[in-house]
Amino acid sequence: MFPIENDRLAGQIAFLLEIDGLKQVLRRSLIFGSSRRENSAEHSWHLAMLALILHEHANEKVDLLHTIKMMLVHDIVELDAGDTFAYDFTGYDSKEAREQAAADRIFGLLPADQSAELRALWDEFEALATAEARFANAVDRLMPMFHNLADGSTTWQSPGVRVEFAAERAKAIDEGSAPLAGLAQEILRRASADGLFAVATEE
Amino acid sequence: MFPIENDRLAGQIAFLLEIDGLKQVLRRSLIFGSSRRENSAEHSWHLAMLALILHEHANEKVDLLHTIKMMLVHDIVELDAGDTFAYDFTGYDSKEAREQAAADRIFGLLPADQSAELRALWDEFEALATAEARFANAVDRLMPMFHNLADGSTTWQSPGVRVEFAAERAKAIDEGSAPLAGLAQEILRRASADGLFAVATEE
Repeated sequence: MFPIENDRLAGQIAFLLEIDGLKQVLRRSLIFGSSRRENSAEHSWHLAMLALILHEHANEKVDLLHTIKMMLVHDIVELDAGDTFAYDFTGYDSKEAREQAAADRIFGLLPADQSAELRALWDEFEALATAEARFANAVDRLMPMFHNLADGSTTWQSPGVRVEFAAERAKAIDEGSAPLAGLAQEILRRASADGLFAVATEE
Repeated sequence: MFPIENDRLAGQIAFLLEIDGLKQVLRRSLIFGSSRRENSAEHSWHLAMLALILHEHANEKVDLLHTIKMMLVHDIVELDAGDTFAYDFTGYDSKEAREQAAADRIFGLLPADQSAELRALWDEFEALATAEARFANAVDRLMPMFHNLADGSTTWQSPGVRVEFAAERAKAIDEGSAPLAGLAQEILRRASADGLFAVATEE
């Protein structure tokens, strides 16, 4: 942009301008009432709002600031690595390596202390080993289910996606929040009854 | 969507689905490297990230969670009231009434305690009477200046916008953060030198 004398501020601004690109990373979900695909920046805002409003439903008490930070940061690696579709089983093989390289580069723009903090937040989200990460993962999995139900299931209609796969993904919601898992089950029940899955269960 | 037995959760979900619409409220700024206008949801995410990364530069110590909440919530009223362009002097006359009605309706979807909390956050942001609100306002004013400088000043090229108006708006940044105000001054200096204002100063 232009030279900034203060090195610390320069790194912070470089990072903040760089992540503007997350507004151009497209997910599979459509926003409500539109044929436009959702981008990862607006998705991150929405999840931060879910965390703010729904954290009382977490199975274990969560630190709200920590959870919101995780929501804001959890998709930034997609800037380089792209959004890997939940049902792209081939893409998932290379997902980790692509995302680790992205994290090195993008968080590396920040001053060392902040780079380490954001990297740790993202690692924590991926590892699902804390109450905050499990709750963050639950809201990350729940919201697209509402989008799918509303738009007639754009992503669930993809070739080969079975209700069992969706149910398996939804199970993780139960690890973070039993009441939200209840909503997920109801969405799956309705979507399945409405024939929204391309390949139905064989039962 | 579908009936949810727990009234509290039902109100929370109704609110969270409703605010998906913020992804369709367009601002005047263009995102970097694109002719697409920024929407208020992705803008809110970006500002929350600015707050997270830049809060050490606030003139007075700010509570980070409180500041981030304010950033996440500050534009939700635009869902009904629309984004009022900073240089739409006629639109500004009706802005407050439109936004108050929007706040009543949208925050009113939430359970009473959360409705009151979000309304208070938005009122606080608008009143600029706390350290958090002044810093939040500073980042809200700074970020579009980077967008303007990058895209050749889409908004500054609007009819009748003078560098003096932009300088007046940028002054508010100094109330929240002196280092960020320094960046704003440098952006204005470069934009003015590059002829990015439709109507130049008469000096």
